[in-house]
Amino acid sequence: MSQPLVPYVAVIFTSTRSLAHDAEYSQWSEKMMGLVKTQPGFISVVSARDPETRFGITISYFKDEESVKSWKAVQEHREAQRLGKEKFYLEYSVKVATVYREY
Amino acid sequence: MSQPLVPYVAVIFTSTRSLAHDAEYSQWSEKMMGLVKTQPGFISVVSARDPETRFGITISYFKDEESVKSWKAVQEHREAQRLGKEKFYLEYSVKVATVYREY
Repeated sequence: MSQPLVPYVAVIFTSTRSLAHDAEYSQWSEKMMGLVKTQPGFISVVSARDPETRFGITISYFKDEESVKSWKAVQEHREAQRLGKEKFYLEYSVKVATVYREY
Repeated sequence: MSQPLVPYVAVIFTSTRSLAHDAEYSQWSEKMMGLVKTQPGFISVVSARDPETRFGITISYFKDEESVKSWKAVQEHREAQRLGKEKFYLEYSVKVATVYREY
């Protein structure tokens, strides 16, 4: 991403995967990674998970707060969040931030 | 981290590890993870890397921009950055952001 883009919004999602539901989790994860890319205001998404600790970080970048709110309200995303809380994650956190510098 | 802490600063470091220097990288990585925790204004650090793609995300949280600048100026950190550019990473990026909401 080039410099003139700032400021934009980062949604930082960190989580620890539970020890079960791997196949179902993969399906939902791929579905969400595909779906987020179709959202208005979506810029990019990066993700990494350590298979040993099962701790992972996903950062979705959006043009503005408005786009983040729209994404939060998407029905399938809400269902994914519900399943996440219920069985995919031992713990998770979400932080929303304004990116103001990059290099 | 509890709600009253916001706003604070996130330094988002993403990188793809090169296919060499694994032992030396691990040493430096551990050293930096230890060192950053001693910095004034340091809050916390999280990190995850996918061993297959070698893509990783590290996010360091600091109290304010001042603390980020101090950390950037630390001599051993500068040396680590130089080695990172030179041999540890195929590519990397740094984004600095203000966290304004979390849950």
